Amino acid sequence: TFAPDENTSGRKFASYTVFKGKAALSMHPILPSFSKLESGGSRVNKNGSVMMTFFPAVGQRKYDYSKKQLFALSPTEVGSLISLGPAESCEFFHDPSMKSSHEGQVKKSLSVTPLGNDSGYFLNITVLNNVQKTTERLSLPITKAEFTVMRTALSFALPHILGWDQALTVDHPRPSSASKPRVERPHPDSEWER
Amino acid sequence: TFAPDENTSGRKFASYTVFKGKAALSMHPILPSFSKLESGGSRVNKNGSVMMTFFPAVGQRKYDYSKKQLFALSPTEVGSLISLGPAESCEFFHDPSMKSSHEGQVKKSLSVTPLGNDSGYFLNITVLNNVQKTTERLSLPITKAEFTVMRTALSFALPHILGWDQALTVDHPRPSSASKPRVERPHPDSEWER
Amino acid sequence: TFAPDENTSGRKFASYTVFKGKAALSMHPILPSFSKLESGGSRVNKNGSVMMTFFPAVGQRKYDYSKKQLFALSPTEVGSLISLGPAESCEFFHDPSMKSSHEGQVKKSLSVTPLGNDSGYFLNITVLNNVQKTTERLSLPITKAEFTVMRTALSFALPHILGWDQALTVDHPRPSSASKPRVERPHPDSEWER
Amino acid sequence: TFAPDENTSGRKFASYTVFKGKAALSMHPILPSFSKLESGGSRVNKNGSVMMTFFPAVGQRKYDYSKKQLFALSPTEVGSLISLGPAESCEFFHDPSMKSSHEGQVKKSLSVTPLGNDSGYFLNITVLNNVQKTTERLSLPITKAEFTVMRTALSFALPHILGWDQALTVDHPRPSSASKPRVERPHPDSEWER
Repeated sequence: TFAPDENTSGRKFASYTVFKGKAALSMHPILPSFSKLESGGSRVNKNGSVMMTFFPAVGQRKYDYSKKQLFALSPTEVGSLISLGPAESCEFFHDPSMKSSHEGQVKKSLSVTPLGNDSGYFLNITVLNNVQKTTERLSLPITKAEFTVMRTALSFALPHILGWDQALTVDHPRPSSASKPRVERPHPDSEWER
Repeated sequence: TFAPDENTSGRKFASYTVFKGKAALSMHPILPSFSKLESGGSRVNKNGSVMMTFFPAVGQRKYDYSKKQLFALSPTEVGSLISLGPAESCEFFHDPSMKSSHEGQVKKSLSVTPLGNDSGYFLNITVLNNVQKTTERLSLPITKAEFTVMRTALSFALPHILGWDQALTVDHPRPSSASKPRVERPHPDSEWER
Repeated sequence: TFAPDENTSGRKFASYTVFKGKAALSMHPILPSFSKLESGGSRVNKNGSVMMTFFPAVGQRKYDYSKKQLFALSPTEVGSLISLGPAESCEFFHDPSMKSSHEGQVKKSLSVTPLGNDSGYFLNITVLNNVQKTTERLSLPITKAEFTVMRTALSFALPHILGWDQALTVDHPRPSSASKPRVERPHPDSEWER
Repeated sequence: TFAPDENTSGRKFASYTVFKGKAALSMHPILPSFSKLESGGSRVNKNGSVMMTFFPAVGQRKYDYSKKQLFALSPTEVGSLISLGPAESCEFFHDPSMKSSHEGQVKKSLSVTPLGNDSGYFLNITVLNNVQKTTERLSLPITKAEFTVMRTALSFALPHILGWDQALTVDHPRPSSASKPRVERPHPDSEWER
């Protein structure tokens, strides 16, 4: 008999997508992964991220998702985006082959520059492939209202992609009655114990 | 035998309502809907919204809810409202019959304009019916404190109406012990896999 | 046989308290109450609040909790507090006997005034009893850091005391497989159905 | 037979860590602890905190975690950090032996000073041991983006380390049908009952 993995089968997907004349941008959060500890607890072994997916328009209100370009924002890159002032810019660089023998073959950059007058930002992703000698570029304007949705959703996602919501959730909210607690987690008093 | 749908029977309703001299405004959040995927997971197929319900005063502290006018804020319209500066305005236009043969028959607009001196906003909903040749209008002032409640509740609701809270929630928080996970969701590494 | 009410027995209490020279202030959130609907769902019939409890110092680091004065902040009063600018003041008035024959006998006011230089606020509660001809007053300074804790906790509490977190939570996150949904809640499309 | 304490075995750990040239800083939230009340409910008897762990670099990208210095931020210290303006500083002092016979033997301080141009902060922890006549110091710069992650995570954590999320969560979301509620918690009406 096969018991489906409930962790996977119950998974829910949600995104926020904006469609513009030349391209669309969709973003969705990705959970951190945990590894089990000997104590029975678990610890984040890989932070989550927020995946930005750009894909080009190929006609009026038609988009080709197969030509998508991906850019996974780390927690600190999310921090950079959500603290961006109305006249500020930022740019992130990713090398998909970092620390492998292919390092430097492909370079991705995501830039965010103000449209001016506090009216939003222009997002541009560039993927430079030094082997194929190709450069792909997708860009679109984001209004202030759309950026506010992004900022609000990213701010909400940030503690989750770090796993803090899970670290701060009590699994079994009733106070345990019988067994003596074995304190595994660091305790504030441990500051004093050195 | 009939098993009641627990999703419905357990549903909870909550709003935030302000009553003023000529009209009242009530707002409540509406959940996104999900559609099931073959993998067993599910995906948002329709974003939620925040429903604004305006209804007129018909006497001192008496309101006629049957004369209500509705305006469902999309996620981006919510983003527009919560980022509104103290001296800024915004206006949204809805056509209830968009993309049908009745397109253009009824036009709704919701405008938000500052009262001045950072003291709040004036909200006005206008419903123009080109067939019945009628125009209905309801409006009321919102204090800065009331708008702060709106902004805080709308900011809280935003990730939820996009379904991000559900995408970021682990259904079964204990690490699964036996079955091998089938990774259905996009993974950050997939940025590198192209 | 008696089955203990789990809603009550599992209740958890939490507050934020600051102790100063002449008085202390403790605040804690209070949940909204729901009433059941015929549909099986439920609706907020009374908003929650944030209770502010002031009690006097009666010696060095000794406080007399029996001499406490209470002030329950409504959602809109919470909105007023959390939007207070560094140089702004606010004042709230409560009549505990509002709309009863004792109306006007006791008057409570809570005032929040800036300490100056963006260094925090001075909170003062005054309870005037017109029958007993007494005036009780308790006040204390709140630093900017303490007010930030208040603002953050109050902002967190606000959607909860309105019941929006419960309205936005899906009880049974798995998509129901069998029974046909009976849509009880207002639906975004209903904007179009008038 | 021994039933493992589920509270402990299901515990999850999550942090946010930044690595710099001379030191690294990791921070993680710590839950409040509750004590059981006679009513069957429970009350926070010790607030949670956010533990800051500094540890030195001992080579390129090598860090010695055994030489760590700890600093547990109280809720009000968290409030101080998250409200810090771009040009403002703050400093906290802890005495691990406060109120014991060893009071004053060890003094810890954590200072946060702006890097200038709204580009972030410099964090410095100093541990002065008056008995061993030693002073240990660890410090590192934090970019604006990293501080935004800290601020967002700390703001998220704050209501949780006060226990407000648990006080605002309804354990059993279905309205209880039968048993009469025994109101243990303070009720808004109690403001009027004095």
